[in-house]
Amino acid sequence: MNFTQLLKTIENGGVTSPAGFEAAGVVCGLKKSGNKDLALVFSQAPCNAAGTFTSNLFPAAPVVLCKERIQAKNTIRAVVVNSGVANACTGEPGMANARLTCEETAKCLGIAPEQVLPCSTGRIGVQLPIDKIFNGIHEAVAKKNSAGGHDAALAIMTTDTRCKETAVQVEIDGKVVTVGGMTKGAGMIAPHMFPAVPHATMLCTVTTDAAVSPEDLTKFLTDAVAVSFNRITVDNDMSTNDTCFLLANGLSSAEIVYDGSNTASKFAAAVTHVVQVLARGMVMDGEGSSKFVEVRVTGARDAHDAHLCAKAIADSMLCKTAWFGGDPNWGRVLAAAGYSGAHFSPENVSLDYDEMPVVRRGMDAGTPEESLCIVMKRREFTVKLDLGEGTAADIMWTSDITYDYVKINADYHT
Amino acid sequence: MNFTQLLKTIENGGVTSPAGFEAAGVVCGLKKSGNKDLALVFSQAPCNAAGTFTSNLFPAAPVVLCKERIQAKNTIRAVVVNSGVANACTGEPGMANARLTCEETAKCLGIAPEQVLPCSTGRIGVQLPIDKIFNGIHEAVAKKNSAGGHDAALAIMTTDTRCKETAVQVEIDGKVVTVGGMTKGAGMIAPHMFPAVPHATMLCTVTTDAAVSPEDLTKFLTDAVAVSFNRITVDNDMSTNDTCFLLANGLSSAEIVYDGSNTASKFAAAVTHVVQVLARGMVMDGEGSSKFVEVRVTGARDAHDAHLCAKAIADSMLCKTAWFGGDPNWGRVLAAAGYSGAHFSPENVSLDYDEMPVVRRGMDAGTPEESLCIVMKRREFTVKLDLGEGTAADIMWTSDITYDYVKINADYHT
Repeated sequence: MNFTQLLKTIENGGVTSPAGFEAAGVVCGLKKSGNKDLALVFSQAPCNAAGTFTSNLFPAAPVVLCKERIQAKNTIRAVVVNSGVANACTGEPGMANARLTCEETAKCLGIAPEQVLPCSTGRIGVQLPIDKIFNGIHEAVAKKNSAGGHDAALAIMTTDTRCKETAVQVEIDGKVVTVGGMTKGAGMIAPHMFPAVPHATMLCTVTTDAAVSPEDLTKFLTDAVAVSFNRITVDNDMSTNDTCFLLANGLSSAEIVYDGSNTASKFAAAVTHVVQVLARGMVMDGEGSSKFVEVRVTGARDAHDAHLCAKAIADSMLCKTAWFGGDPNWGRVLAAAGYSGAHFSPENVSLDYDEMPVVRRGMDAGTPEESLCIVMKRREFTVKLDLGEGTAADIMWTSDITYDYVKINADYHT
Repeated sequence: MNFTQLLKTIENGGVTSPAGFEAAGVVCGLKKSGNKDLALVFSQAPCNAAGTFTSNLFPAAPVVLCKERIQAKNTIRAVVVNSGVANACTGEPGMANARLTCEETAKCLGIAPEQVLPCSTGRIGVQLPIDKIFNGIHEAVAKKNSAGGHDAALAIMTTDTRCKETAVQVEIDGKVVTVGGMTKGAGMIAPHMFPAVPHATMLCTVTTDAAVSPEDLTKFLTDAVAVSFNRITVDNDMSTNDTCFLLANGLSSAEIVYDGSNTASKFAAAVTHVVQVLARGMVMDGEGSSKFVEVRVTGARDAHDAHLCAKAIADSMLCKTAWFGGDPNWGRVLAAAGYSGAHFSPENVSLDYDEMPVVRRGMDAGTPEESLCIVMKRREFTVKLDLGEGTAADIMWTSDITYDYVKINADYHT
């Protein structure tokens, strides 16, 4: 059964779509642009929480704090996010600022500091201007409301050009369960782990009014991250701040257990759908990108080989620049597969671009270059490589590399 | 003793600097530009030969042939190189064309086809226009001469903007030994192996008039590649055609054994110097590049960690675009180290840009950004990261990523 069919997308939905969630996004003065740069997500009821985090050896101060709180199974009431300053590589002063952020938020909301999850994104190595953060917190607490999800999603953006949020509803045991989410991230985007383990690679908050234990939330989140955020790359640079939360406040009174039942599958479908929409949105909005490319590897000896191969193609500078140029240059795809570390025989390899055969038996399939160029001109296309070795498969979502990517990153001061 | 001090650089030296080598570079019509595209290197006496090759699973047809001939310890008389067409992913017709290339060259030179090493570079997946190759061979054989090294070096260029060749002399046991070399390669440049094994990542021919056995030549070449071509990256894309030869015709009558003696060390210094000059030249001429960056990692737990860390920084898109922009953005360097897979404690890490302290104990060292910008403006600088864990070290040479890199690779048809 395809449980995704049961989902109903909520128009303009986001983190405040599930019952009992409020949010705000305000200007606290970290961004030179003067755009919103502080977001608050608040739940009227305590939430069980799961989190996945960067595996970078330089985790930002807020990542360190959040890991502790998630592992301790604290009930969570609020997430506070600033953009503009990453609070990474900031030592003890950075840890102190992350704690102060939580304390101030807690004081204003009348909750415990341990119930607050802090996040930061922006330039590494700079200390948080804590006075500005405090002012932002005060304003956000005053402004938070049950329609504030969009403002929060705007406030977490850095080089993003589009706000990334979504929400779906699904009926579970006669009750309506809602899952909503927002994410930011357009650069420094590369999951770096296989198989899927509790790690994520950007800044994402998913909310739901389902009632789920922390242990089971972690399982649902891990499964969902494995087929979404762990399947995207923009520039193969893993951040110091990547964080993904799943918060469940139980206000729908639908109780969900990770037990393989239809109930569990419906909830899993909702969570997975939300994070996949957000993950695709991140790649679509990858810094400077003009193409969304799905790299689909089939026929691999095992899942590890399939992933190595898909990731090598998805990260290849030469493939990504060729896609930008609309150049079908399939030799670059095969070369990337050839150095990926995957095992296969060149003469068994097939390649297709969408509906067009490109390579058969490791050689030119004879499709005229003009026909291949038709595919390359599409905003979105699929590169399908079959290794002819086995039955394992993998998918990566990636973007092209453009002049604008270079421009954005050669001259980045938030 | 520093044997490099004993080397004498030959002005305008190249593959024909050692005794008994002749070469030519001619136009056979593969390049749209009308530039030279077929090179011949010929030795008046049979050569012992060593070779290192790409580990890509799609080795080009000439790579397959050359591997066989090197492994069989054939004596070699000629190397024939075409640029413009890679003859990779070309199946049996491609193998047949590589063989025909050797047969025609052998016929014209009065040698055996097995004494010819073929090389190709250019677009993947296209068959060699064999008639043009034959015409080129005829002309090159007619024109070859003992001053032809420069023409040959010109003829192997693709996106290279500069001809890369050099030669040195060293006195060994009262005899003058000369080592010369030429290389091409500006993109699709990334060695992909650790520790150093017989692999290389571009197209290089090194000639010498020393007398060395094939086994010992392989050892000298492997050592030299480990500290040169295996230490460079331009775009982290490993080619299907990478090849490096070391040919020794013995005409200097200096006999050299790989035995750790001073004699061996002098020869090793000469070979190493030649390939390091060529490897640096490749990075300096990396497609579109405006910076040469040495990434030096020290204080690592072991050599593997040191290499992982140096390579992650050298390949980081965000570091490379920051270097292009002259942005000291050290957070990107630390982030790359943090996801490299190397083990270390963030609080023990130090970073310097040339003479400027950047990070101490994992945090900002306090050097004003203007001072760091002075270093970033240099054509060449060193990024020195100390992990504070142990005594292992590694070096990588890399380039920045510029608009021109994107331009060259978004629109590449030789």
